[in-house]
Amino acid sequence: MKIVVDGFGGDFSPNEIVKGCVMAVNEIKDLEIIITGKEEIIKNLLAEFKYKGNKISIAKAETVITCDDENPARLIRSMPDSSIVVALDILKQNEDVVAMISAGSTGAVLAGGFLKLGRIKGISRPALAPTLPTKISGKGVVLLDCGANADCKPINLAHFAIMGSIYSQTVYGVENPKVALLSVGVEDAKGSMLSKSAFKLLKNLPINFVGNIEARDMLTGDYDVIVADGFSGNIALKSVEGTASFVMSKLKKSITSSIKSKVGYLFMKKSLKNLKNDLDYKQYGGSQFLGCKKPILKAHGNSDAKSIVVVIKQALKVAQNNYNKKIEEMLEKINLIEE
Amino acid sequence: MKIVVDGFGGDFSPNEIVKGCVMAVNEIKDLEIIITGKEEIIKNLLAEFKYKGNKISIAKAETVITCDDENPARLIRSMPDSSIVVALDILKQNEDVVAMISAGSTGAVLAGGFLKLGRIKGISRPALAPTLPTKISGKGVVLLDCGANADCKPINLAHFAIMGSIYSQTVYGVENPKVALLSVGVEDAKGSMLSKSAFKLLKNLPINFVGNIEARDMLTGDYDVIVADGFSGNIALKSVEGTASFVMSKLKKSITSSIKSKVGYLFMKKSLKNLKNDLDYKQYGGSQFLGCKKPILKAHGNSDAKSIVVVIKQALKVAQNNYNKKIEEMLEKINLIEE
Repeated sequence: MKIVVDGFGGDFSPNEIVKGCVMAVNEIKDLEIIITGKEEIIKNLLAEFKYKGNKISIAKAETVITCDDENPARLIRSMPDSSIVVALDILKQNEDVVAMISAGSTGAVLAGGFLKLGRIKGISRPALAPTLPTKISGKGVVLLDCGANADCKPINLAHFAIMGSIYSQTVYGVENPKVALLSVGVEDAKGSMLSKSAFKLLKNLPINFVGNIEARDMLTGDYDVIVADGFSGNIALKSVEGTASFVMSKLKKSITSSIKSKVGYLFMKKSLKNLKNDLDYKQYGGSQFLGCKKPILKAHGNSDAKSIVVVIKQALKVAQNNYNKKIEEMLEKINLIEE
Repeated sequence: MKIVVDGFGGDFSPNEIVKGCVMAVNEIKDLEIIITGKEEIIKNLLAEFKYKGNKISIAKAETVITCDDENPARLIRSMPDSSIVVALDILKQNEDVVAMISAGSTGAVLAGGFLKLGRIKGISRPALAPTLPTKISGKGVVLLDCGANADCKPINLAHFAIMGSIYSQTVYGVENPKVALLSVGVEDAKGSMLSKSAFKLLKNLPINFVGNIEARDMLTGDYDVIVADGFSGNIALKSVEGTASFVMSKLKKSITSSIKSKVGYLFMKKSLKNLKNDLDYKQYGGSQFLGCKKPILKAHGNSDAKSIVVVIKQALKVAQNNYNKKIEEMLEKINLIEE
């Protein structure tokens, strides 16, 4: 299988991205990767990592989209030679390329995916779907949409529910994923006009819809998929990130607050490192842009080589298991198409 | 000053509530409290806490609203003899009672406040406003609305901004509170249709509006007031709660994961207790229901006596500083009334 990777997106690009690609092709049989970006730099890095095989090729891209512009669609149009756009073009044009990965600007990846690739038939609004850690070690929860669509209709949320459910099956192997709707109370009738209308659609879908949940319970490990409009989902995701960072900074402060607790830290160092790893949601891969014609995965901005390998494996799972085809078949079966 | 306290709301009621009232009248000169609830039980508790003064009186209420009903307004109507409703009636009818406090059902307190007390002139949607801790020790941030209004119009968010700003001044003594709008990006044009329209209103208000923020930055300590519609605000609040509980549970697990880290814990015990206190937002008092004709404060469900004293002091500050009058004057001045 062949994938394309944006070599110049993310805080530690291009080094960690190229290194991750080398690790991936060394580990995974039959994997081929095209890396986009400045040819000389990538060549030198491949030499540095002593890569001598022929499973990695380079597609030249002279510029890099570095910022989240207010209007990412404009960026995509005005920078056709950027590493993201070149990667998206390859994904679109080459039939044998099955997925694209970038650790670059989320806005640009989303806008580019939408503009260049287009949508799965029947899905009018693709959604950004990261996987968050839960209280149960090793079990993640998929939250979507996390910001691709600030304004949604009920049918969009129904599509998110279907895409999330099949994603949880396909990538994480959950047999009958528990899908919940993010709301302001657990009772069926609680919520906004949008969430209440969505609730009615969700309960009639052929998925394991378990009802409303409050944001407080997102990370309990009781759910596999949480559905939200892009505005609330983004706020939920970023509240989780901000609070985790807030608690860890307070923890660090308390540890260094006295000599006694500094001594204690020496004993707990390993456990606290495990805690940090446990909270790190790079362990579950990247955020997938679900609903695009071909899989597009957004790796975390601070991805290192190891995280890139995780995202590459995730992309292969989605492609190998015909994720998009399953969505299309489901939509056709239940006839849930936005007018 | 006289206030009324629901004696039978909250996980540790009536004991901790009555104890808190006794502590408050012993500490605060000129404070009088009416406690609502079952007379015999309250009498026995006052005897137990050796209270012999005449600053606490009892208003009989035979029933207790224990659950969050799907329709709290119905509960309020059908339980006129409950400790919450009796307290609200006293607040409404007695001119000398300046505020009401309950640690009971949020839904019932909100619905009751709205039905019994009515709104400040010009405010069509009162808002629930808790104060969250931030990275800066001792500095809280007011987040509103946290769930009183699942569907909002832009003008409601403008009212929230004004109410939050004056609240931050009145209760926390912040001179020129920084007010931010919760959105999905920091750029002015980022957001939902609702938040973008609200942005335009907020930037013309006579407050220190600093623009959009992402949920990730809510707890940095850089802001004094964060404005959101009740659906997103509730999700933000509960994501913070859920994530803090998630991280603390992971921390506990890592501490007990090895003998070595258990030894470390012995040294760090005090620091970790400080951390827990630092994260506890009961330190900032209760959530006020801003926009009601008279101050109504919702104490946390798990409030102990000490927390009740904090909420009582908060209520007195709001009343003494003529919070409601300031809001009315501001609304009149800027002529921002919902049609």
